[in-house]
Amino acid sequence: MRKVTVAAIQMSVPETREQALDKAEALVRKAAAEGAKIILLPELFETKYFCQERRYDYYDLATPVLENPAVKRFLAVSEELSAVIPISFYERDVNVLYNSIAVLDCGKMLGVYRKTHIPDDHFYQEKFYFTPGNTGFKVWNTSCGTIGVGICWDQWFPETARSMALMGAELLLYPTAIGSEPILDCNSKGHWQRCMQGHAAANLVPVIAANRVGIEEVNPDENNAFQQSELKFYGGSFLTDETGNIETCAGADEETVLLREYDLDEIRDFRMSWGVFRDRRPEMYKIISE
Amino acid sequence: MRKVTVAAIQMSVPETREQALDKAEALVRKAAAEGAKIILLPELFETKYFCQERRYDYYDLATPVLENPAVKRFLAVSEELSAVIPISFYERDVNVLYNSIAVLDCGKMLGVYRKTHIPDDHFYQEKFYFTPGNTGFKVWNTSCGTIGVGICWDQWFPETARSMALMGAELLLYPTAIGSEPILDCNSKGHWQRCMQGHAAANLVPVIAANRVGIEEVNPDENNAFQQSELKFYGGSFLTDETGNIETCAGADEETVLLREYDLDEIRDFRMSWGVFRDRRPEMYKIISE
Repeated sequence: MRKVTVAAIQMSVPETREQALDKAEALVRKAAAEGAKIILLPELFETKYFCQERRYDYYDLATPVLENPAVKRFLAVSEELSAVIPISFYERDVNVLYNSIAVLDCGKMLGVYRKTHIPDDHFYQEKFYFTPGNTGFKVWNTSCGTIGVGICWDQWFPETARSMALMGAELLLYPTAIGSEPILDCNSKGHWQRCMQGHAAANLVPVIAANRVGIEEVNPDENNAFQQSELKFYGGSFLTDETGNIETCAGADEETVLLREYDLDEIRDFRMSWGVFRDRRPEMYKIISE
Repeated sequence: MRKVTVAAIQMSVPETREQALDKAEALVRKAAAEGAKIILLPELFETKYFCQERRYDYYDLATPVLENPAVKRFLAVSEELSAVIPISFYERDVNVLYNSIAVLDCGKMLGVYRKTHIPDDHFYQEKFYFTPGNTGFKVWNTSCGTIGVGICWDQWFPETARSMALMGAELLLYPTAIGSEPILDCNSKGHWQRCMQGHAAANLVPVIAANRVGIEEVNPDENNAFQQSELKFYGGSFLTDETGNIETCAGADEETVLLREYDLDEIRDFRMSWGVFRDRRPEMYKIISE
């Protein structure tokens, strides 16, 4: 048996980076106190979701990985708590900016994954801020099992989950910042959850999603913003079992720590017994990678 | 607007092929009378699920497509009802046997797809009967829109759904024969549904699944069968919307016709607005087809 408790943290983002780091650290410590060894924070939790507007000065939020304040702070926290903590951050690599994850494990940085799929609409203007990632999907052999981490929009792509599962991921983690769709006028929460439940079900790998909550607003008279914009991040963070059943799910507004224990060996045996990886036909899937 | 009503038929399979064809035809006519133009029958509905046991004489059930009794009968029915009717049948191609679908449209046969993924365990011994299909995934430009049809075990593979969606499928149909797992001792119905809900959600294409119901039993003293075997096919046929929400779902035992109307143009617009096909990165998906 390889049992591990995983936590998903759902939080709103306060005004300053320092406040955000303090809040995130307090929630991570709470998760660890309840037994979590893998602790997932939401996407880009250091700042308000700046992609609501296009501002060149926000490029300055990006840093090389080891200069990022969250990475620096949580390297120490992950060592103290003997925990695995993926940190979502805005990365600068010379002249190119990425939406990235640094995977921290007991005080060590295992490496960086850069978000492969970048969304774009009037309210999630990510193509202005992030170049599509060049690392390819990755999995991480941590002290608590092999994990794959996709970042937000990545979670809509079956290719992300399947690739990480083929590379050996035993858990799929998705830090997220998703909420209202002011133009499309739909509540996508169910759609968003079902898509990831499907990844768990098809790959027989549990999915853990951590989203932000809260209303974040931009007004056109402030800071040369060109459009009024408001997003309500809808929470709904969750942890599934290996068949895609949602075992625990957060509300739309609360700040909370969700926890679940997994037996990675038991899940591996079930995954093998199901036979779907045995029966794949990669030669028939060319259209997917062309 | 391109509106089309789709039906999924859930039925048990009677003793003889003639009885099965009569029952299937009656249910297809009922669906058409209620407005259905695309009508999906379950997998291999002409016979009891013979894959519970290995018997060489069952190879004789397979025929070339135009000699299959269901294909012959439903070619006329599809013409009379001006309907699209995919027919699941056991196909013989010279010395090779396949688990196949013939897609019938208003009296014409559009072609055959052969099941790509073949399962195998003590109760679903399909690798004894079916060679993995050599056609590749297909979509069909029918009189009622472009449909993709996967066959049972295919439904567990995100690659099947994604490939058909990339080829233009506006609806994904899955004829099925799935039920209890006597060895694994689990009820996979929720798992099975969530997996396909995920395909709909990720591809923004509705999924229609038609399963059989009823208990089918094989006893070791009959017909040289080597093991006692009993399967309870668990029904649960369903139709989702384009976000994977189950809009209508059958019970575990009933014989029924499920119906739903789709506006294929409206769904296409929503699919486009969601942006996931715009943001795919095929060059990053090599591991899937290698």
